[in-house]
Amino acid sequence: MANLSDVLSTIDANQGDALERLFSLISIPSVSALPRHFPDCERAADWLVAELQSLGFEVAKAATPGRPMVVGNAKAQTRDAPHVLFYGHYDVQPADPFELWKSPPFAPKLEAGPSGPRILGRGAADDKGQLMTFVEACRAFRQHGGLPCNVTLLFEGEEETGSPSLPDFLASHAKALKADLLLVCDTNMWDVKTPAITTMLRGLVMEEVVLTAASRDLHSGLYGGAAINPIRVLTRILADLHDAQGAVTLPGFYDGVEELPQEVAKQWRDLDFDDAKFLGDVGLSVLAGEKGRSALEMIWSRPTCDVNGIFGGYTGEGAKTVLPAQASAKVSFRLVGKQNPERIAQAFRAFVKQRLPADVKVEFRSFGASPAFVLPTRGEAVRRAQRALEAEWGKPPLLIGMGGSIPLVGAFKRELGMDALMVGFGLDDDSVHSPNEKYELSSFHKGARSWARILSALSQ
Amino acid sequence: MANLSDVLSTIDANQGDALERLFSLISIPSVSALPRHFPDCERAADWLVAELQSLGFEVAKAATPGRPMVVGNAKAQTRDAPHVLFYGHYDVQPADPFELWKSPPFAPKLEAGPSGPRILGRGAADDKGQLMTFVEACRAFRQHGGLPCNVTLLFEGEEETGSPSLPDFLASHAKALKADLLLVCDTNMWDVKTPAITTMLRGLVMEEVVLTAASRDLHSGLYGGAAINPIRVLTRILADLHDAQGAVTLPGFYDGVEELPQEVAKQWRDLDFDDAKFLGDVGLSVLAGEKGRSALEMIWSRPTCDVNGIFGGYTGEGAKTVLPAQASAKVSFRLVGKQNPERIAQAFRAFVKQRLPADVKVEFRSFGASPAFVLPTRGEAVRRAQRALEAEWGKPPLLIGMGGSIPLVGAFKRELGMDALMVGFGLDDDSVHSPNEKYELSSFHKGARSWARILSALSQ
Repeated sequence: MANLSDVLSTIDANQGDALERLFSLISIPSVSALPRHFPDCERAADWLVAELQSLGFEVAKAATPGRPMVVGNAKAQTRDAPHVLFYGHYDVQPADPFELWKSPPFAPKLEAGPSGPRILGRGAADDKGQLMTFVEACRAFRQHGGLPCNVTLLFEGEEETGSPSLPDFLASHAKALKADLLLVCDTNMWDVKTPAITTMLRGLVMEEVVLTAASRDLHSGLYGGAAINPIRVLTRILADLHDAQGAVTLPGFYDGVEELPQEVAKQWRDLDFDDAKFLGDVGLSVLAGEKGRSALEMIWSRPTCDVNGIFGGYTGEGAKTVLPAQASAKVSFRLVGKQNPERIAQAFRAFVKQRLPADVKVEFRSFGASPAFVLPTRGEAVRRAQRALEAEWGKPPLLIGMGGSIPLVGAFKRELGMDALMVGFGLDDDSVHSPNEKYELSSFHKGARSWARILSALSQ
Repeated sequence: MANLSDVLSTIDANQGDALERLFSLISIPSVSALPRHFPDCERAADWLVAELQSLGFEVAKAATPGRPMVVGNAKAQTRDAPHVLFYGHYDVQPADPFELWKSPPFAPKLEAGPSGPRILGRGAADDKGQLMTFVEACRAFRQHGGLPCNVTLLFEGEEETGSPSLPDFLASHAKALKADLLLVCDTNMWDVKTPAITTMLRGLVMEEVVLTAASRDLHSGLYGGAAINPIRVLTRILADLHDAQGAVTLPGFYDGVEELPQEVAKQWRDLDFDDAKFLGDVGLSVLAGEKGRSALEMIWSRPTCDVNGIFGGYTGEGAKTVLPAQASAKVSFRLVGKQNPERIAQAFRAFVKQRLPADVKVEFRSFGASPAFVLPTRGEAVRRAQRALEAEWGKPPLLIGMGGSIPLVGAFKRELGMDALMVGFGLDDDSVHSPNEKYELSSFHKGARSWARILSALSQ
């Protein structure tokens, strides 16, 4: 059985090579939302296949209706070791607006930061840096005789587009993928020195709405006043989605939303989260959500509706007096508790249709609908992970909620009946989904060490 | 003195060459709104300089802070002839969305249409085809001894961006440009067989509003609910601009707007304008403007507010759960009567500012502000033009209003004290400012003949 301190020393000794490997993966612009980058998604999958093969994993690139899955398997050094399934995703968010990046998003580099060196690049944190922490931990074990657990790796290429192929894939590969525990590395620490285990995730419904009025763009001088303007219709509908108190107005939206249990509310208050700093870090000063709620409530335990994009008419430089034929918006809902994603998508579509005047047609597209998820926090695996993280970071991990959504966690629960242990080393200021995404070098290095400790702890 | 029927015969005989010249001008993508096309604007100006020089005009390309003016002068054949100033513009609207064009917008061609052949291409009608009708009339006179009037030509390159340089240029070149009458060919006929003289123009205020909230784009999972979304703020403000009756809600917006005089209202009713056909031609069925008004009222005599473009967040394919830092819109107002453009621009800015929540900053850009204009209809010049147009088209021209705005007409009145005679040969279905802009070949050919007749009539 590999000695843990040897494994940790090996991770320390291999830091430079590990960073080069991560840079090489970040350099592949595997943007799953953009068809022109589909070949890059294939390249990223191939890169992972080769990487895992070199570590002695049995690896397959498995086709899906969308981007491929990478599945790797390696046996533990000992019999009767537990079986863990590690999940990560190799796809990344689009990098636009490019002009706001300090350096090209797919030419990763190290830069100095207030907490030490950091890795700059699209996917540095979400999720290439995170998934490689686990791969590097596996590598170190292999150099010392083998893994302490049976490990299955599953790397997806569609997480950023709502994991459309994942549920079917899990269902059809249930036998190969079902393990004792799911490990996910796609979440954040509490801060740069305090680890965290995430136990609550919001769900996500993503809709696109396209309104069409006239059969072509019109001259606003010749038709303005008489012909209906779909931008005007769209802005009115979107403005209606919230009331003056910041609450979402969709009928039935809050069905299944429960107030926080007293003890959790107390725990969150005790976290001493600084609302002013949280907002101030991004240039804001006033909470914009439901009146009377704290920031942590807003982002961890309350549902939201946001317009993520809106587009219509002429948006180039200067002016164009066009009365456009179309206007569109991308609208997403973060769900909590027992909110039903399908019902909310339907309520949204009904809400839009009810407000359509004559002559305006609507089309909808769905980019995913997943429920919120609350994870069990009292099991043996969580306790072992807590101890392992405390050993690495010098303080116990916090059990936290997370505003983002990891729909796949719900899919694993539904399809395979598996619970997830979500440990990640991202930080709130990593700018995931924004320009200048970064991942702390300490997250990358100590993240790999953390996984080594967790794997070792799970096997004992 | 040139014989008019010889001149008309020459125009007929030169049709093929005239069309080639127009194609050559349309081929230059002189889009004044887009900096990458500024060199093309220069090329279009140079093309006109060469063209006019070949006709014996004294020509200059005159610099402005924006795109250059082309000014040409030619003396009449006889002393004591009147002096006319003809205005046209060589710049065109952006051609996007390109994918909706039947053929490339800057590769003009003839196609068959229900009223005969038509010229397809960006600028075919607005305004390259129209301005060339006058140039071709001048050419024919030159082939028969000379012009019947002293002619100054002024071709502008910024009409589609609100003519920002024109007022100063007119003021500083007043002596050279001041003439007895301004002729403008940038308006429409009543229908393909019925000419028109336009006597009412709406004014135009064009504003861009840019809202900025956070210092960078945010992940809607990490910040959604707590951080303010500028798209939500913008949609609410824009939705507020109209009430449920379709009226504009800006305080003071209707100051200076008068009801139509009874006799004009009656004349318009007698025009027997078919609202259903007007809307049906562009796929619509219901008038969308102020309740209780006819389509002609809405587009000729009532002020409007339209959002011409809106943009914010992620608008590419698929979904991206971004909470954007910025959202922007282009908003324009069509003015009538004595509405004050500066006051309306200010009212709009105040309206937006009053509705800004904490943390949201706003920037405005103006792309022009011009008042409405009502032209005298009882002068000698109008009577002569009426007779000339009736001779060409076999029926008297209608005196009509126009929903579009020609801000320069106001500038000529203010700076040079000149009234305009607006005769154009465009049609409502020319798709100016839209894909597949066209100009009827009959408009181009009979337009040149019409100008020959008008010049001749004005000189007698």
